[in-house]
Amino acid sequence: MPTILGQNQYGKAENRVVKVTREGGTHHLKDLNVSVALSGDLDEVHSSGSNAHVLPTDTTKNTVFAFAKQHGIESAEAFGILLARHFVDSCDPITTARIRVEEYSWERIETSGANSSGAESAASQSADVDESEHSFVRKGQETRTAQITYDGESVEVLSGLKDLTVLNSTHSEFWGYIKDQYTTLQEDYDRILATDVASVWRHDWTGAAGEREPDWEHSYARAKRHMLHAFAETYSYSLQQTLYQMGSRVIDNLPGIAEIRFSMPNKHHFKVDLSPFGLKNEAADGAVYYAADRPYGLIEATVLRDGATPRIPLDLTNL
Amino acid sequence: MPTILGQNQYGKAENRVVKVTREGGTHHLKDLNVSVALSGDLDEVHSSGSNAHVLPTDTTKNTVFAFAKQHGIESAEAFGILLARHFVDSCDPITTARIRVEEYSWERIETSGANSSGAESAASQSADVDESEHSFVRKGQETRTAQITYDGESVEVLSGLKDLTVLNSTHSEFWGYIKDQYTTLQEDYDRILATDVASVWRHDWTGAAGEREPDWEHSYARAKRHMLHAFAETYSYSLQQTLYQMGSRVIDNLPGIAEIRFSMPNKHHFKVDLSPFGLKNEAADGAVYYAADRPYGLIEATVLRDGATPRIPLDLTNL
Amino acid sequence: MPTILGQNQYGKAENRVVKVTREGGTHHLKDLNVSVALSGDLDEVHSSGSNAHVLPTDTTKNTVFAFAKQHGIESAEAFGILLARHFVDSCDPITTARIRVEEYSWERIETSGANSSGAESAASQSADVDESEHSFVRKGQETRTAQITYDGESVEVLSGLKDLTVLNSTHSEFWGYIKDQYTTLQEDYDRILATDVASVWRHDWTGAAGEREPDWEHSYARAKRHMLHAFAETYSYSLQQTLYQMGSRVIDNLPGIAEIRFSMPNKHHFKVDLSPFGLKNEAADGAVYYAADRPYGLIEATVLRDGATPRIPLDLTNL
Amino acid sequence: MPTILGQNQYGKAENRVVKVTREGGTHHLKDLNVSVALSGDLDEVHSSGSNAHVLPTDTTKNTVFAFAKQHGIESAEAFGILLARHFVDSCDPITTARIRVEEYSWERIETSGANSSGAESAASQSADVDESEHSFVRKGQETRTAQITYDGESVEVLSGLKDLTVLNSTHSEFWGYIKDQYTTLQEDYDRILATDVASVWRHDWTGAAGEREPDWEHSYARAKRHMLHAFAETYSYSLQQTLYQMGSRVIDNLPGIAEIRFSMPNKHHFKVDLSPFGLKNEAADGAVYYAADRPYGLIEATVLRDGATPRIPLDLTNL
Repeated sequence: MPTILGQNQYGKAENRVVKVTREGGTHHLKDLNVSVALSGDLDEVHSSGSNAHVLPTDTTKNTVFAFAKQHGIESAEAFGILLARHFVDSCDPITTARIRVEEYSWERIETSGANSSGAESAASQSADVDESEHSFVRKGQETRTAQITYDGESVEVLSGLKDLTVLNSTHSEFWGYIKDQYTTLQEDYDRILATDVASVWRHDWTGAAGEREPDWEHSYARAKRHMLHAFAETYSYSLQQTLYQMGSRVIDNLPGIAEIRFSMPNKHHFKVDLSPFGLKNEAADGAVYYAADRPYGLIEATVLRDGATPRIPLDLTNL
Repeated sequence: MPTILGQNQYGKAENRVVKVTREGGTHHLKDLNVSVALSGDLDEVHSSGSNAHVLPTDTTKNTVFAFAKQHGIESAEAFGILLARHFVDSCDPITTARIRVEEYSWERIETSGANSSGAESAASQSADVDESEHSFVRKGQETRTAQITYDGESVEVLSGLKDLTVLNSTHSEFWGYIKDQYTTLQEDYDRILATDVASVWRHDWTGAAGEREPDWEHSYARAKRHMLHAFAETYSYSLQQTLYQMGSRVIDNLPGIAEIRFSMPNKHHFKVDLSPFGLKNEAADGAVYYAADRPYGLIEATVLRDGATPRIPLDLTNL
Repeated sequence: MPTILGQNQYGKAENRVVKVTREGGTHHLKDLNVSVALSGDLDEVHSSGSNAHVLPTDTTKNTVFAFAKQHGIESAEAFGILLARHFVDSCDPITTARIRVEEYSWERIETSGANSSGAESAASQSADVDESEHSFVRKGQETRTAQITYDGESVEVLSGLKDLTVLNSTHSEFWGYIKDQYTTLQEDYDRILATDVASVWRHDWTGAAGEREPDWEHSYARAKRHMLHAFAETYSYSLQQTLYQMGSRVIDNLPGIAEIRFSMPNKHHFKVDLSPFGLKNEAADGAVYYAADRPYGLIEATVLRDGATPRIPLDLTNL
Repeated sequence: MPTILGQNQYGKAENRVVKVTREGGTHHLKDLNVSVALSGDLDEVHSSGSNAHVLPTDTTKNTVFAFAKQHGIESAEAFGILLARHFVDSCDPITTARIRVEEYSWERIETSGANSSGAESAASQSADVDESEHSFVRKGQETRTAQITYDGESVEVLSGLKDLTVLNSTHSEFWGYIKDQYTTLQEDYDRILATDVASVWRHDWTGAAGEREPDWEHSYARAKRHMLHAFAETYSYSLQQTLYQMGSRVIDNLPGIAEIRFSMPNKHHFKVDLSPFGLKNEAADGAVYYAADRPYGLIEATVLRDGATPRIPLDLTNL
């Protein structure tokens, strides 16, 4: 047959695992969506259908849930590392494992201290707000992501986030661009800049003996914070410029991060033309905008620490 | 022809209007999705296609954007009332207008005070957190909703929310139910209770002369808060019981609300059977759960102030 | 407590049941999404959490799957009728059952008769196309829907469809409408008319003794066909006119249908203004259109057989 | 600054362009979603925000619509090639253009020849089915995709499809796999095999002088047909085996295709355990299945013509 098998991988995708940890009456929650992709010596299953080298996807699912019980879930990254190592180290034909994780965050519901459903008590109007021990509301902001790849020798960890929607209502301009025969856009000296940030960053850490493992939770919080600061604090002449500032800020402040990639739609907010109705609609006076769906600008770029080798793929997929 | 025209309505749906208000350097944001549905003397357009009584949906769209500039957007409800009254009062063939609004909330990005993209300053690590004046991140939690109907005489206001995801990791039981030949479910004395709250509540206020208009923003915040409190504070033997507590709490605490309806999926979190792997997985020890997609229980009910007439329809739609 | 319980219902939603029927080597497929909603004497579960009157949603799920095996699935409607009657007739506290069904249609994969994966054979290029006996491809067009309600006495059957996307590239005009101060729309004498048809129709049949049950499969096929014919054959001056023709055609041709409701977005296809580039873009020459997302016109109406009582709710929901 | 810019690209995504072509009274439709991504000498816009080298995304949008009028849309691939070449050849700083296209297919509505809305005529019951000249219904099956990349020298064309949902109700087994301590899956000798095919294939053609350009429409139809044949005709011991057969069949039959990649979820259809109800549920008798959502197996692989270099990325994204 004149065809050959190229790169291939398989596994169970989107295992929705929730782990509760009880610390006395206080509960903690980890809510993940874990996808497993294994590759290795798998020619036979493609050519003859022999499954002799196949660890069933169902078993990879069971492993995710069992590991959550056996090891707990310290962080998306730490959990993914455990799983990736397990599949490669325990299953001979498997030479590489890639674990992808989405994490959904929850916050505690604030309670008033009241337990009755009666009329609003004084307590519930006071400032003494307590937090529930075991009641949570989904935060609903960005989704945290992680991808861990292990090839039997070293670990590659990509952390990230998606659907972090941000907006600057001023300090954004767009002018001085190329004009050709298809150009109709007017220059704008005070526009809204809005985007849904999707970002993936790569850690230097490779899991070698003696390397100190990053504090993944702390690292994530800092990366997100610096990204938001840079977005808010950049007076922007293009979304590319803002993106680059966001990337630089993360790399400048987190020494263990080698590269970061962004995919950011330009969520257009068009000033509505109200002149047919005798109305002015200027940014300076507080304008009315139409939030458009499609088409949208799409800006993508990688920012690297000087000397780092780019390894994050161009297209950021979900799973 | 043996057919006749029944109820009908038309208008422009999903007008995505964003209004910025500038207060010196401090900006405020209202981000709405407004849908218009008009009805009235519209037989002709259905039978002959004559548009003589039709205010084009395009015009209703223009009106939404123009009104946002002319009147600002004080709240979803207030904006909807203005629009509903306008269409009925200004356009003869239109006798009823229904405005539906979704509102997306934003919070200010916290800034460090730093403006440089340099190495992390002392300031950014201190507790002196500032808020940006014109930079926002979408909160991403629930979507607020409102429906305003005006028939030329009185106004009906339904406020609401959807996609408020909540979870109790304990204080939920389920037992004592009917068993028939198709029953396999085991009783559970410590389960996770999770749901996406969709709720709509009706205000007594009808816009009559002399009636004091509610403070819609304050009312919404209180309704949501009481709902969350009741969810967190109810030791639950069924999702129905929790729902009823949530509804009662809102009606007990907000005198202007006559009825409230909920549609709440039972988002099942099944304890994973880890016994094949020699592992115990008990709630009391901090269990591992599988968060299921479909099927799901769906619990729907209306709670009324004693004496109130139910007017909220059974099925809560988006638009 | 000053609150009382209003209308309520509960059950398992979105049971995804697939039934294969084997007729020798030839297989047949029914692919449904079944949602159950029960109501009755359920005050206690809301007030005290007592489940003594509650048939668990898990049991309603089991019943759906068991019934598919015991009775087969003749049609969405027939299956729903069986289920609705079962829940009310077999479970004392339940007085009304509403079953909602979505059905996904499949067609057989055409085969060439070849079984080798070798070079294209003469057979595969001939017109002798065979159909596979057990291989299917999802049709992907509309989703068929049904809602069956049984209150212990009579059955109400609503059949329907959604997401049937249709487009006329001409024979659509829009002019002669009301102009007010917010009107900017230009009249159009040759426009694209496109919509996603969502429709629900009610059958006269109530399941009384002696009534002849409709052939649900045949009835559905005819209703869809007449709808499409009316859409294609109406020279349209408004989407309302087209909608009314579609409804009339169904009621005129299917004597057992009492009323039909439509919810049809006007999926705008705007002629692109290419004049800045020195290009004409006229419908008559074959124009280029921009297919817009939001906002969109939304046209909703009920068409009734003369004398019929409207019972279909205004808003068509999914589940 | 210790950071540098890596790979980057920008452009307008998801331009929804519909082109009508009129051939007398007979209309033809092309319905595309076109995304543009440009890269080149773009360091400055990232570092300083200078847009001197930036062709605005708005201009790329205008170009898409203008080209649809000026050149028509012969096929997704041909249209993408025109656009990619234009951006690189006409805009100095741009050195590479990547055009991604989704295409939605429509079929003509069958008409009865009747133009009245009266009672069902004899004609509409006869077999003389005509097709409408300008009325279409969206086919709704798979979405066709294309990606064209031009770097100033050669063109790379990836054709593809996604969301082609197929199912074999028998001729699928799964057994003989690895068992470890986390294995619970039972072997199955007669199961349903179902998947949503997403596939991308690369053409040898590079646009060099003298090369004969493929007939893209014909090529697509054949690739899809061979894929479906292989799916239907393979007696399968694993989804990987089926996938490989599908890929081989395409490459064997289409000499111009060098490689093909698939991403195929194993859409699990689990036989429901009806034994608690005293019911057998065997595949051989026509079983009842539960169609699961998540988790799902995910099988991905590339099949290459012997000697070809793999160039299709591992993860198939939408846009």
